[in-house]
Amino acid sequence: MGTSTVLHKNSVFLFELSGANSALLNDPALCAKLLKQLTVSAGLQELKSLSHSFSPQGVSIISLLAESHIALHTWPELGTGYITLTTCKEPADGFESEATALLEASFKSETVKTSRL
Amino acid sequence: MGTSTVLHKNSVFLFELSGANSALLNDPALCAKLLKQLTVSAGLQELKSLSHSFSPQGVSIISLLAESHIALHTWPELGTGYITLTTCKEPADGFESEATALLEASFKSETVKTSRL
Repeated sequence: MGTSTVLHKNSVFLFELSGANSALLNDPALCAKLLKQLTVSAGLQELKSLSHSFSPQGVSIISLLAESHIALHTWPELGTGYITLTTCKEPADGFESEATALLEASFKSETVKTSRL
Repeated sequence: MGTSTVLHKNSVFLFELSGANSALLNDPALCAKLLKQLTVSAGLQELKSLSHSFSPQGVSIISLLAESHIALHTWPELGTGYITLTTCKEPADGFESEATALLEASFKSETVKTSRL
């Protein structure tokens, strides 16, 4: 039996994109590259990854990290998508602003709304 | 280019366990079964799954759903773990309380703290 003290701090970051470019949101290679960039930006390490392309459109990718997971889901038909980073380790300084800039640039998003749990 | 209106409602549910049984937290088959039960309880559909057992202990599983993803990460040495359900579709009525009861019973958890984003 373990202790009831949670020694690791769990965080969930949610980035919601809107007004983004449909073709970019539907590009699995671009989405995969972006998740890897976000993982590096957070100072975290990817172990394994899984992706799925929906018909007629939409991409989902989930990557298992040494420090939990990161995932992306897109709706090209709506110009929307979201990314979550769930981690037991505090991301590197500046991660949130770097991630927002990366998401705006990569998908030509009008807005990126950030929330944290 | 899509519209900037987000028509789907994204939700993240976080369940944090503490005071749970170490052996149960370190059992990949039990963890996988539990994630499937939670997915069914939420009224959602699993597409693919990925798991990893850490050395010397700890289990991570992430499952891609038709409606985003569900994941589990455990720290048997601490008696802790957490589960996130990230979904673009509102889970079935009663999901949160059913999930809490399932997590308490499956891992003999002293506490299950629930948060939502």
